[in-house]
Amino acid sequence: MNLPTCQELLLDTDGGVLTISLNRPKKRNAMNSALVKEVMAVFDAVADDRSVRAIVIRGEGGHFCAGGDISGMNSDAQDEATAAKAVWDFNRVFGHMITKANSAPQVVITLCEGSVLGGGFGLACISDVAIADKKAKFAMPETGLGIIPAQIAPFVVTRIGLTQARRLALLGERINGEQARQLGIVHFVTDGAEAMTEKLQMVLASVRRCAPEANAMTKQLMLQVGHVEQEALLDQAADLFCDSMRGPEGQEGTRAFLEKRLPAWAE
Amino acid sequence: MNLPTCQELLLDTDGGVLTISLNRPKKRNAMNSALVKEVMAVFDAVADDRSVRAIVIRGEGGHFCAGGDISGMNSDAQDEATAAKAVWDFNRVFGHMITKANSAPQVVITLCEGSVLGGGFGLACISDVAIADKKAKFAMPETGLGIIPAQIAPFVVTRIGLTQARRLALLGERINGEQARQLGIVHFVTDGAEAMTEKLQMVLASVRRCAPEANAMTKQLMLQVGHVEQEALLDQAADLFCDSMRGPEGQEGTRAFLEKRLPAWAE
Amino acid sequence: MNLPTCQELLLDTDGGVLTISLNRPKKRNAMNSALVKEVMAVFDAVADDRSVRAIVIRGEGGHFCAGGDISGMNSDAQDEATAAKAVWDFNRVFGHMITKANSAPQVVITLCEGSVLGGGFGLACISDVAIADKKAKFAMPETGLGIIPAQIAPFVVTRIGLTQARRLALLGERINGEQARQLGIVHFVTDGAEAMTEKLQMVLASVRRCAPEANAMTKQLMLQVGHVEQEALLDQAADLFCDSMRGPEGQEGTRAFLEKRLPAWAE
Repeated sequence: MNLPTCQELLLDTDGGVLTISLNRPKKRNAMNSALVKEVMAVFDAVADDRSVRAIVIRGEGGHFCAGGDISGMNSDAQDEATAAKAVWDFNRVFGHMITKANSAPQVVITLCEGSVLGGGFGLACISDVAIADKKAKFAMPETGLGIIPAQIAPFVVTRIGLTQARRLALLGERINGEQARQLGIVHFVTDGAEAMTEKLQMVLASVRRCAPEANAMTKQLMLQVGHVEQEALLDQAADLFCDSMRGPEGQEGTRAFLEKRLPAWAE
Repeated sequence: MNLPTCQELLLDTDGGVLTISLNRPKKRNAMNSALVKEVMAVFDAVADDRSVRAIVIRGEGGHFCAGGDISGMNSDAQDEATAAKAVWDFNRVFGHMITKANSAPQVVITLCEGSVLGGGFGLACISDVAIADKKAKFAMPETGLGIIPAQIAPFVVTRIGLTQARRLALLGERINGEQARQLGIVHFVTDGAEAMTEKLQMVLASVRRCAPEANAMTKQLMLQVGHVEQEALLDQAADLFCDSMRGPEGQEGTRAFLEKRLPAWAE
Repeated sequence: MNLPTCQELLLDTDGGVLTISLNRPKKRNAMNSALVKEVMAVFDAVADDRSVRAIVIRGEGGHFCAGGDISGMNSDAQDEATAAKAVWDFNRVFGHMITKANSAPQVVITLCEGSVLGGGFGLACISDVAIADKKAKFAMPETGLGIIPAQIAPFVVTRIGLTQARRLALLGERINGEQARQLGIVHFVTDGAEAMTEKLQMVLASVRRCAPEANAMTKQLMLQVGHVEQEALLDQAADLFCDSMRGPEGQEGTRAFLEKRLPAWAE
């Protein structure tokens, strides 16, 4: 694995799991442009590597992520057009990062502790599996600051529906881990760091039982629902099924099933 | 504020909140065409007025709204085509009203007491915040009358998903406030008129902490999710972010944040 | 009613209810191509018959359906292209069946007992009303076998949203009846065969109170939400409303309402 050198992230790889730790603890891991670009570079580096089965995103120091770093949001540029362009770029890059993380072929898991705000909230909303500490605080506080939850809006609406998204955004409401689970922002709630690690291990054990290429295909397929005409999508689904069934994973998997043994990827 | 004179509604404005009370209590506020057109005229009158921060919709006499007034649904016209046109228009205007209320730039709040049926159910389904009394009765009773929940169908499906929408519509099932909250029709459940008023005041306090123009932009953005291609929507989101950040609200909001004080709009 | 002769299904009709029992109990009703085609033929046979008010799908022997019959998934054909075509066709036909069942004009009810896996899970996801036994086991186990939940993907995502669909598919997670209800896969949970039958009778009683043609129109309308531009859909909804209101059901229904008696279809 050829991972990029990072200033704002800590990276760790162990047993097919790549862990990305946002490492700006003094800012509760508020994201600046450098951090955002590093996250994208890491996802790019492993995009074709099926030995990486899962990517875990977490924050150093007890907080997941407090959003975009507001101190970087204004530009010092004298010239109007340059200043506006800087703000525009600063914002838009978040959307590129979330889009990339959303469509990663690996299983993406977020560990939501402490502050899960703004852009951090958006990142939680694209994880395949999200685990929250019961005391975590989730919110879109943007309009309380006179700005808007811009790049995360589509991902939040896709995650929890328009009904809850509009309520949370327009009230700036703060909710905890259990409420986040009830709304479908996260899948599991745990109490304390140890319980979270334990739950993560259980999730990773499940991931290892699933074939990596089949998981990547399944995710690719599901992400297209609603964006591609349904009959065309079902045709494409049959293509992918055919590839998986007749490829090495399908052959090994069905053989292992009939022989009542674990398939190679699950050992 | 230049509000229209209304026969079927009571209007009240207080501290940035416009309250629209459906006022046909003997009919449990069943809607005729006059009422529907008055609601639209009220929304139009305040569309550009950011001093109106929230619009509350409620019903006089303990019921929110029993739906369309069935006594107005048949036409007396002798001529077939004229009669059909009258029924068509009577129905279609509900969709225009719900569409307008759905996209209002203000935070729209519904107070769901008593009967919340048919068109009333549809109206609840587009509010940014819906508060239900625990004893409220929600239903789409149309097919039990041989007719269909026509203009509300898209809004109900958007609100609670196809899964629950098809079940409720095809069984004509009646559910209470807590069940409505579990399905995501409403956000909060209260017990009795006093508790509802108290909850409303808390919601309005949250609304006042959020910048009015930023809230309007956020809502506009979220309503487009799924209707506009995603990358184009994220570009537009960056435009809106730039406008908000560099406009008066963003400047005031970020300054207030750094100075640890309330922004002007929240005082 | 002119029902096809079936080898893999048991059919029963009683009081406007057609019951389809998947009848491969030794295989926990895993579906082969013959069964899938028989299900389609049955739906076709009653498509224009409004005397059939509900279609119940269940499985013989305590299991709903264990998915696609894996023993039929490989082809014996020597020639590559022929073998690939056979696998493709085997898969694609499931999508045709689910699409047909999804859009049936009748109210479709599934009784989810025992195994509700893969294609069986997909079938549960398109029923208008799903009742689960509390001990039922729901899962998409495909990627654990090296293959993918191909034809069911769009229906699962539509049913429970991308958030839960990606989690369940990528972990191969197994959930019970109550968890399935919480995620919106099913609407009701019962304990034991007797309680399930009782709940089914209650659901059927509700179906009988609703006008059959109005129910068919409502379902047709709701299935188009998100696939047809909204203003055009609301225009079409007004057309359908007009047809129902001025047709025999609307005339009988509104008259019965004003006369405080049951409409003809509910007797």
